[in-house]
Amino acid sequence: MIETAKKAKEAAFRIANIDSKLKNNVISSLCTELEKRKNEIISENSIDLEKGKKKNLSSAILDRLKLDDKRIAGMVEGLRQIIALEDPIGEVIEERKLRSGIFLKKVRVPIGVILMIFEARPNVTIDSFALCFKAGNSVILKGGSDALHSNRILAKIIQEVLAKNKLPEECCQLVESHEAIDELLKLNEHIDLVIPRGGERLIKFVVEKSMIPVIMHYKGICHTYVDKDADIKNAVEICYNAKCQRPGVCNAMETLLVHKDVAKSFLPKLAERMSSVELRGCERTRGIIKAKPATKEDWNTEYLDLILSIKIVDSVDDAISHINKYGSKHSDAIVTEDKRAQENFLKRVDSSSVFVNCSTRFNDGFEYGLGAEIGISTQKLHARGPMGLRELTTYKYLLLGHGEIRK
Amino acid sequence: MIETAKKAKEAAFRIANIDSKLKNNVISSLCTELEKRKNEIISENSIDLEKGKKKNLSSAILDRLKLDDKRIAGMVEGLRQIIALEDPIGEVIEERKLRSGIFLKKVRVPIGVILMIFEARPNVTIDSFALCFKAGNSVILKGGSDALHSNRILAKIIQEVLAKNKLPEECCQLVESHEAIDELLKLNEHIDLVIPRGGERLIKFVVEKSMIPVIMHYKGICHTYVDKDADIKNAVEICYNAKCQRPGVCNAMETLLVHKDVAKSFLPKLAERMSSVELRGCERTRGIIKAKPATKEDWNTEYLDLILSIKIVDSVDDAISHINKYGSKHSDAIVTEDKRAQENFLKRVDSSSVFVNCSTRFNDGFEYGLGAEIGISTQKLHARGPMGLRELTTYKYLLLGHGEIRK
Repeated sequence: MIETAKKAKEAAFRIANIDSKLKNNVISSLCTELEKRKNEIISENSIDLEKGKKKNLSSAILDRLKLDDKRIAGMVEGLRQIIALEDPIGEVIEERKLRSGIFLKKVRVPIGVILMIFEARPNVTIDSFALCFKAGNSVILKGGSDALHSNRILAKIIQEVLAKNKLPEECCQLVESHEAIDELLKLNEHIDLVIPRGGERLIKFVVEKSMIPVIMHYKGICHTYVDKDADIKNAVEICYNAKCQRPGVCNAMETLLVHKDVAKSFLPKLAERMSSVELRGCERTRGIIKAKPATKEDWNTEYLDLILSIKIVDSVDDAISHINKYGSKHSDAIVTEDKRAQENFLKRVDSSSVFVNCSTRFNDGFEYGLGAEIGISTQKLHARGPMGLRELTTYKYLLLGHGEIRK
Repeated sequence: MIETAKKAKEAAFRIANIDSKLKNNVISSLCTELEKRKNEIISENSIDLEKGKKKNLSSAILDRLKLDDKRIAGMVEGLRQIIALEDPIGEVIEERKLRSGIFLKKVRVPIGVILMIFEARPNVTIDSFALCFKAGNSVILKGGSDALHSNRILAKIIQEVLAKNKLPEECCQLVESHEAIDELLKLNEHIDLVIPRGGERLIKFVVEKSMIPVIMHYKGICHTYVDKDADIKNAVEICYNAKCQRPGVCNAMETLLVHKDVAKSFLPKLAERMSSVELRGCERTRGIIKAKPATKEDWNTEYLDLILSIKIVDSVDDAISHINKYGSKHSDAIVTEDKRAQENFLKRVDSSSVFVNCSTRFNDGFEYGLGAEIGISTQKLHARGPMGLRELTTYKYLLLGHGEIRK
């Protein structure tokens, strides 16, 4: 693996300063090739699907694994959006003359080599390469073994496009064996960043083993808190949207918190609107609407499904405490017309995105105007929340002198 | 240790939103107390010094350990500079209306709990607390055991000042046992960031064991490259300053690279100017000036002393390769009048600060206008180069809606 990492580093040095036009040309050629070779891709993907069926993978996993005409068109559309994004490299973040007379420039530069570890979603291969590459980084991809054939053909197409453009193939390398991960995670001299995307076990494993800085894209246990001064009609629609518009994603609501003074008027309306959702409530909730009993386990669970846990709280402070205790620092919302409650919630909820009077589903790179994203970071260092092109860069200081020495 | 970490987290929530005036008052009271109690501090420090002498600690370590009137005045002066710095918390980094109608604000917030691990420099106790606190963070300090009595009295004074201002003492906790480090480094649910400062062994240990994000303040193997188009007189003074003005610090030059075409005219002048420095040269260097032979080991060594290794190279490209191979991504300089060589060097040297025609000694938070610094980061994620107040913060997104739901 050390050879893989060293080659990735060399490749990263080669592409750190190439111009935007060449980078966009490469991504554009990749679009053309994906469209031209879609039958080949679908045929390789069908090998993975066959194996997955034999292994009795769940239908949700098989669905994520599947590539068809529409999904390939979606990948191409994603690439076109990345082409349209401004190249972050070379941006002058700050510049000023120092008291010594030296002129300081803080400029945006690539990070270097990024290791992506992900599960059976072959589209991540294409997205990750394009985002890392446009930010001037080389990438080492370790995809889930269930997507092996799909990832192989996609990585092969990427490497052929790179070679055709006289760029090193090692800008994008696929690693296949699971055992390689252990070794890669120790190579902090050559790899600059690891991004694990997947289930709790994978993330914990990486955080424990890695000597390389890690940015987690961890689970989303997202809350909506309906305050005593909420507009009830708004609250019902915001909650319905946060839970039901796309329940399988990380910014969907998992737990609803309701102020005790508004529970009796709000909860029956909510239950009616959410007739398709399995409700699990605390004792007080179950005194008002029909719901299964919620246990402490429920406050810690990311359902990613049409299930909602509900808890009645005594105050906005209690809601904040619950969120800071059980949440995953992802996306949490308050519904209220009371400015002081809004401010209290905004200041004290320790999450990457805090919402007032709207759905948590808006936590998204496109919605925030960052363009395509590599994921939503749930940690605090370097990048927090949606992680786009700019978050795949670092900076350096350039100091332009005229013979200055320090006194 | 989990109790220590939990209390630090609670304390961090308490101080995350307190106003600048209160924070400055606390630091100002700390100045008063340090001055008032300096005899007590010096007396506790003398216990450490006695023990250190019995343990045969080197005179360099004993010197760093020592606190006297002048050093305490220096600590107070450092605190006054921190008071004068603008409070970074609450700064609106970006704001805009999104296409959904939601108003987005990206605001600067504290990181939370910071664990500082450092060696026998008691002044770090005071600096670290003040910087972390002004940025709204609580700090857990694990200082070197050789400074135990000094750190105890300083931490006690800090905690008394916090208590007097009705703030939780747990904003600043001192941890004494070395074994505690192992346990602390696993508490990634409660501690947000570790900053180790010290020798290679300490840093490697922390990087290997930590499940918490680490920002390293690692060694400085800094280079100056004298190009064929250098102004020779400037080059001699820049090199002399980079090596000799303060040889024991991380931004001092350790290796000098010289273009072959200029070696014969430059090196004798340099050797004359650096008569007090032990020179170690490659074979070609030793054909021109008197120097001990340099081995590969020398290219990897941070002397922190009046020793300089010298290598003659064939081109600016060779100089860049040497630096990217042996350097520590800290501070590297080129001396040349050739604009193309400057640009090549600035673009391709992978260090946090790259200098043209001036001394590497300028890599410093004060010189860069950041104010006091907690150190100079040699890694790429989150903070690179001098790490001041702003680098001790993160951000969150506030989304202010009016009932928006996602379609």
